[in-house]
Amino acid sequence: VTSAPPAAKKPFEDNRPIGLFDSGIGGLTILRSLMSALPNESFIYLGDTARLPYGSKSPETIKRYVKQNMTLLGNLDVKGVVVACNSASTVLLDKDTEFPVPIYNVIEPGAESALQVSTTKRIGVIGTNATVHAHAYGHVLQKLDSNCTVFSRACPLLVPLVEEGWVDDPITNLIIYRYVSPLLANGIDTLILGCTHYPALRGGIGRVVGPTVSLVDSSEAITDRMLADMAGGHFGKSTQRSLIRVLTTDVSPVFTDVATRLMAPQLLPNIELVNL
Amino acid sequence: VTSAPPAAKKPFEDNRPIGLFDSGIGGLTILRSLMSALPNESFIYLGDTARLPYGSKSPETIKRYVKQNMTLLGNLDVKGVVVACNSASTVLLDKDTEFPVPIYNVIEPGAESALQVSTTKRIGVIGTNATVHAHAYGHVLQKLDSNCTVFSRACPLLVPLVEEGWVDDPITNLIIYRYVSPLLANGIDTLILGCTHYPALRGGIGRVVGPTVSLVDSSEAITDRMLADMAGGHFGKSTQRSLIRVLTTDVSPVFTDVATRLMAPQLLPNIELVNL
Repeated sequence: VTSAPPAAKKPFEDNRPIGLFDSGIGGLTILRSLMSALPNESFIYLGDTARLPYGSKSPETIKRYVKQNMTLLGNLDVKGVVVACNSASTVLLDKDTEFPVPIYNVIEPGAESALQVSTTKRIGVIGTNATVHAHAYGHVLQKLDSNCTVFSRACPLLVPLVEEGWVDDPITNLIIYRYVSPLLANGIDTLILGCTHYPALRGGIGRVVGPTVSLVDSSEAITDRMLADMAGGHFGKSTQRSLIRVLTTDVSPVFTDVATRLMAPQLLPNIELVNL
Repeated sequence: VTSAPPAAKKPFEDNRPIGLFDSGIGGLTILRSLMSALPNESFIYLGDTARLPYGSKSPETIKRYVKQNMTLLGNLDVKGVVVACNSASTVLLDKDTEFPVPIYNVIEPGAESALQVSTTKRIGVIGTNATVHAHAYGHVLQKLDSNCTVFSRACPLLVPLVEEGWVDDPITNLIIYRYVSPLLANGIDTLILGCTHYPALRGGIGRVVGPTVSLVDSSEAITDRMLADMAGGHFGKSTQRSLIRVLTTDVSPVFTDVATRLMAPQLLPNIELVNL
């Protein structure tokens, strides 16, 4: 890793919940990962399902929505916010330092993991239109290691395929192949799954890219980062889990079905409707 | 047709523009159709691109957005509003009669056309989750002809496929086949394209269903209805086109590309950004 870690301090206690937000329910893969790795932590997840997806929208509009999400979580007294959405992380890279608690985005931990596993430093990124057009991973990867070469591809059909439940499906594998084969032709040895829905397609993506290409899942990367920050005294640790809340701005049976699948094997808490 | 048409009156002049709104840009297929059929009319199109799609969202959320769209168009002094979106038409069927000018939705004209062309009265409907789960076409078809049988299927991948530009594509045809084959197995002789994006896939859908199944395109149905209402003196006619405006709540290069393709061969006007 090329970024200098801050000096270690003594771990400290903070029993407030960790906030997460996403444009919808894809970020539940990150909630699931954090819930397993941090069994004493409490979480409040906000999914902006009334306005999803963010991935097809402009940076200005995404920024406006992100601000509203952060304000809502801030008012619920969280000790930190995880931006569990690549498209939203993209607009946060030019940091809003006025926010009173730490903000974790998915881009930087994902980029660092990719550099750790890549030997050729030819790295592929797949994501939504917003994430890919903003070159978010490219900028961070280049800053961390100017010798790396980044090849990216927007894959707007993958989110609807996951939401349709067509995972492990020959049609989905054909679509993955069409999206990913130009990246393979460029000789990548590492592929960043730059959207929180994509871990659901890990099996199919793995078969298409083959065993010589490593897959980087941002939900694992952000979990590792948070564990390290707690151990290093840069982020408070809770001693006992007191709550898991899932708030969304719209509720429908279709969302609940997809959310249940994304959270499995963990149970989806009751969804609470909020207005933004 | 089974619905009794209102008594014909003398056609009258009204030079105000016709308003249209859609969750995004799919409704441009209806604008394009109306622009060709009504060369003297002016139009204001509103696409709620900052919050699209509506098709995956709950009726309550869609109703809230529809109300805001109608208010914006009402303030621009339109002489009528075309709900150029099946998902939004679904929530308007329980009519808001307080609106001061006529409202045209796509469901009723589409249902009437289907009954005109069907001989077996076994009618298929494809659309978004919102349109299909609301049984909007089913309710209207049954009201018009209680002898008809309706088979419907939500096809959430078709909109992203059109927006990706994968029309006339073997993968898209496979997906169409998977969605439509259960309807074919039910012996339909007519298929309603219950989403404004679907006319872009007319070629592929036509090849999958074969020549014995008639396709009903709501953009044609609504155009015919409006022409009939003008001729029958139920809706004002303009004597000269003065404007075509396209307003959207978000602007991005991806939207503009897709919008340009959907409007072709007509030219897309400059897009104006509005806030809702």
